[in-house]
Amino acid sequence: MIVESGNVRRRSTIRLSASDLEAGYALACQAVIEGDAAILIPEQEAVERRLVTDKTARKVEVPFAYDPIRDQTIRAFDLALDPPTLEDSIDDLSRLERALATQGIFNLDVPLPLLRELGSKLRDAEWNVTAIIETDHWKRNTPRLLDLRVLKELGDLSLHGIAIDIGTTTVSVYLVNLITGEAIDTAAEYNGQINRGEDVISRIIYANKNGGLSELGNLVRKTINDVIDRLVSRNKVDRKQIYKATVSGNTTMMHLFAGLPPASLRLTPYIPTVNHPAPLLASDLDLNIHPLATVDLLPSVASYVGADITAGVLASGLSEADELTLFIDVGTNGEMALGTKDWFVTCACSAGPAFEGAGVVCGMRATRGAIEEVWINTQTFEPTYRVIGEVKPKGICGSGLISLVAELFITGVVDKGGNFVVRSDFKSDARPRVREGEHGGEYVVAWANETDLARDIVITKVDIDNLMRAKAAIYAGFTVLAQSVGVDLADVQKLLVGGSFGKYINVEKAVQIGLLPDMQWERFNFLGNTSVLGAYMALLSREARSKIKAIAEKMTYIELSADNTFYDSFTSALFLPHTDMTKFPSVEAIWDNKEKQEVW
Amino acid sequence: MIVESGNVRRRSTIRLSASDLEAGYALACQAVIEGDAAILIPEQEAVERRLVTDKTARKVEVPFAYDPIRDQTIRAFDLALDPPTLEDSIDDLSRLERALATQGIFNLDVPLPLLRELGSKLRDAEWNVTAIIETDHWKRNTPRLLDLRVLKELGDLSLHGIAIDIGTTTVSVYLVNLITGEAIDTAAEYNGQINRGEDVISRIIYANKNGGLSELGNLVRKTINDVIDRLVSRNKVDRKQIYKATVSGNTTMMHLFAGLPPASLRLTPYIPTVNHPAPLLASDLDLNIHPLATVDLLPSVASYVGADITAGVLASGLSEADELTLFIDVGTNGEMALGTKDWFVTCACSAGPAFEGAGVVCGMRATRGAIEEVWINTQTFEPTYRVIGEVKPKGICGSGLISLVAELFITGVVDKGGNFVVRSDFKSDARPRVREGEHGGEYVVAWANETDLARDIVITKVDIDNLMRAKAAIYAGFTVLAQSVGVDLADVQKLLVGGSFGKYINVEKAVQIGLLPDMQWERFNFLGNTSVLGAYMALLSREARSKIKAIAEKMTYIELSADNTFYDSFTSALFLPHTDMTKFPSVEAIWDNKEKQEVW
Repeated sequence: MIVESGNVRRRSTIRLSASDLEAGYALACQAVIEGDAAILIPEQEAVERRLVTDKTARKVEVPFAYDPIRDQTIRAFDLALDPPTLEDSIDDLSRLERALATQGIFNLDVPLPLLRELGSKLRDAEWNVTAIIETDHWKRNTPRLLDLRVLKELGDLSLHGIAIDIGTTTVSVYLVNLITGEAIDTAAEYNGQINRGEDVISRIIYANKNGGLSELGNLVRKTINDVIDRLVSRNKVDRKQIYKATVSGNTTMMHLFAGLPPASLRLTPYIPTVNHPAPLLASDLDLNIHPLATVDLLPSVASYVGADITAGVLASGLSEADELTLFIDVGTNGEMALGTKDWFVTCACSAGPAFEGAGVVCGMRATRGAIEEVWINTQTFEPTYRVIGEVKPKGICGSGLISLVAELFITGVVDKGGNFVVRSDFKSDARPRVREGEHGGEYVVAWANETDLARDIVITKVDIDNLMRAKAAIYAGFTVLAQSVGVDLADVQKLLVGGSFGKYINVEKAVQIGLLPDMQWERFNFLGNTSVLGAYMALLSREARSKIKAIAEKMTYIELSADNTFYDSFTSALFLPHTDMTKFPSVEAIWDNKEKQEVW
Repeated sequence: MIVESGNVRRRSTIRLSASDLEAGYALACQAVIEGDAAILIPEQEAVERRLVTDKTARKVEVPFAYDPIRDQTIRAFDLALDPPTLEDSIDDLSRLERALATQGIFNLDVPLPLLRELGSKLRDAEWNVTAIIETDHWKRNTPRLLDLRVLKELGDLSLHGIAIDIGTTTVSVYLVNLITGEAIDTAAEYNGQINRGEDVISRIIYANKNGGLSELGNLVRKTINDVIDRLVSRNKVDRKQIYKATVSGNTTMMHLFAGLPPASLRLTPYIPTVNHPAPLLASDLDLNIHPLATVDLLPSVASYVGADITAGVLASGLSEADELTLFIDVGTNGEMALGTKDWFVTCACSAGPAFEGAGVVCGMRATRGAIEEVWINTQTFEPTYRVIGEVKPKGICGSGLISLVAELFITGVVDKGGNFVVRSDFKSDARPRVREGEHGGEYVVAWANETDLARDIVITKVDIDNLMRAKAAIYAGFTVLAQSVGVDLADVQKLLVGGSFGKYINVEKAVQIGLLPDMQWERFNFLGNTSVLGAYMALLSREARSKIKAIAEKMTYIELSADNTFYDSFTSALFLPHTDMTKFPSVEAIWDNKEKQEVW
């Protein structure tokens, strides 16, 4: 924070530079306000609406040939009942069941709220009704009545569902027409829990506090309801005609959403309460859709391999792959699966939030004002950058950081160890781009006067170390997965990248820092949010739903903290791009070429 | 009511005698209070605690050889789980399921509230737990988790259930130990709905008013909770360890209890919402027992043949009978079933509340101060009577009315048509017992000075007509049932009488007025509350439960209002005891004997 006036005692200044202090910066968590004071929260710290979310949402294709009769568990049955007489005086429910039996529906479960309305609904409709029925779900074979509507209303019959992905940072929702299968609209919003902690670990800790669990649960449910509000109002859909929801997300998000205490997820041996909860009701979870709607939480595999991965493995196509395929979903955590249609292994590595712009001095989320890509001139070492929203920069987001570190490395500003190289040509400048900061070397990406800030935007040696640990953890994950099944990473024929992160990074740069394996371009596929896409497929089709279940059951989970080879692999990867350059031939080629140039 | 002082305008006095008016009586429903007034509600009108209820409850025997493992659906499983490790890191629920699988429990359903506590319960118990599970019920084969308790608590393991009979007048509850099968205590209370209407028809009408349905539902649920409070507190049972309830009662009571609108029950063609609802949860019905406890509503057959009859047919033994057997349960309605173990027919006739003391000038419920039996001297025609509680009489209850009318008939004070016989010997008395009242003839049972009232206790011609219609309806029911299957009432080998009414009436007198068929004494069985007994059996054993279901399915219901022979049978029975005296040989013998005496 910036102290504009008043008395504020700084209990620690260890992460602040002299110029920071001069500019009035203080660490908010270490500040004691000792009287009236005017405090400014720098813009890059405030949560701001991402530029993506709704506007950039692309049209989603129906993911397969959809037949609502064959695929869908939510069905509408038109019924013309015989009115009761003294000779035919069976009870109302039996009359409904008798009519449904002619359409192959037996053993109907009628929830109490509907039973209470049954008599008046049948009579008001003069015995001509449309019964909305969930015919089955993966945990139960018997049909369940969801709604009774007057048959005449049939003209405007609509059956809707929603597919939800609860990300640690962003909640994405598809509104789906269950008759056509079409995703008629999509929307996204920051997860309302974000102010209670940036990553899953801090959320778990927060949930452990008194009232924390219900607070976090309420926050994410409110976020989902807000997104639903937006979707139903702009598409003029009756929220009470949303009869089904599928939910994907990492294991922590699923726990918090369902109100399950997540404490044991972060304590060894990392145990979830449940990986695959039975379907719940919307009313259990305060979702503002039909209260009897089924809410189907997709299966997780372990504490750090969630439904986002099992859904992603289906949506990405890994589960149908003939060739060796690697699927990764990089968010706050790096989660990945390796396999073919016949087998998968999976693991998760804690990348930390560096790739989301947190834990980095000038880091920020990928919102307006974030530097998202950087190029460094190989002669002058001067940077050029692109800013989201084409405004003055406020900080650097994850893709910008990857791009920046790759450029610093390729141009020789930093060495393989991530250390700034002291070279005379850096000093010849009027204002050196590489300089000694309070915490060691740093590179100035943007001078203060180019920015919206009172100070320069820099990347420090400490930031680079953070990023290297993050990318090393992910690369070590690939290595351990491959070793666990005795294959070589080089044998991977396809790399499927899920997550919105994957949509914006420059693959070449990601390979150059050693975040992604070095392979031919055509083998990379960037798929966007595979988690919500998997939820959408599960919403449409019971076959897709059982495939995800089968994926979860088939997946072998490798717990990296229990794996002896992980630490070695991690250490080997703590270089740019890696200690073993032969694993990165394209980077090696640039390097060789560069060295040749310098020799010339 | 009695107006003690003040201005009260009587809009109608049609049912009041001159002496009533002199004594200050007014019809409350026809009175306009025109200023300050002091009003007395005569004691016999106020609802008073019946002398029966708890104190006279007899010890209930376990109704069959009970084996909790074989018979009971609520079971406790002791589990020593392996604590999780990095190598054995399945989720908590799968760990529980794995242990249960070794005891034959698969596909466990874990309700969300329990899932939310699962992790902490397992860890607090250090992985040694007792799982309380409902293994199945008639509608569902999969087991459901109800509770998890620390294994060490096993010393005080208790599993309880309750069997409930919701009568129109009285709610009876058994508290049952599900391990031993013993009914450890029983209690009863007036149905809290009683002030909203004496009989099912007035309750249905009340339920139709705005808010009436939820009011009546809340009232009966409060009554049940009050009785449960008494049972758990005096037996030191933890109400949260009551895991199951079975509920019996007539169809209207079941509807009101479950919150189902009863309107269509009383409108032709008399259709219930549901005869056999799926089991509900205690929390759905606000019962103060374990919130996840199953509440199993026993099946009805039709709007006026309820679970009290299906449960009664089992509890009475009719469903196991080799010989032709008639089962009747006389309350406000007369419900009856005729059959053997292989078949049953059933019907209901609206007897009206006369047998419960209502609709009769000096009628009252069978509480303290009610005349419950009367004898009339054949020479002097002077009565002797017995009063409940051995106090001064306030009125006449149902059994007293039956006894009184039988005596009037046998002694010749009234004739076969129920008319008072004008005879000289009645007039020779200083004060005539038979006299002309405001509404025709009446007989004085107790002079005012013998009573707690300001007036004589009498039975009028109008009262006798009411009682004759009630008994004729019931007898006509028997006749129609027998005719419907082509048997003769005289062929009935056993008459099983359920209901508390049956416990107090004098059979001989009931036969003499033609309420019950004339058969040998040893063929009568008075069984008390067969409805709650059936609920108790269903609570204990899944076999008993499926027998009741089979009874309901097997029963052929005869709708008397659609039966052409009913009216004829009713008219024939509108005499004392019947137009056809050959059906009542024992009464004919008395009559013949009497006529012979008079001839002498």
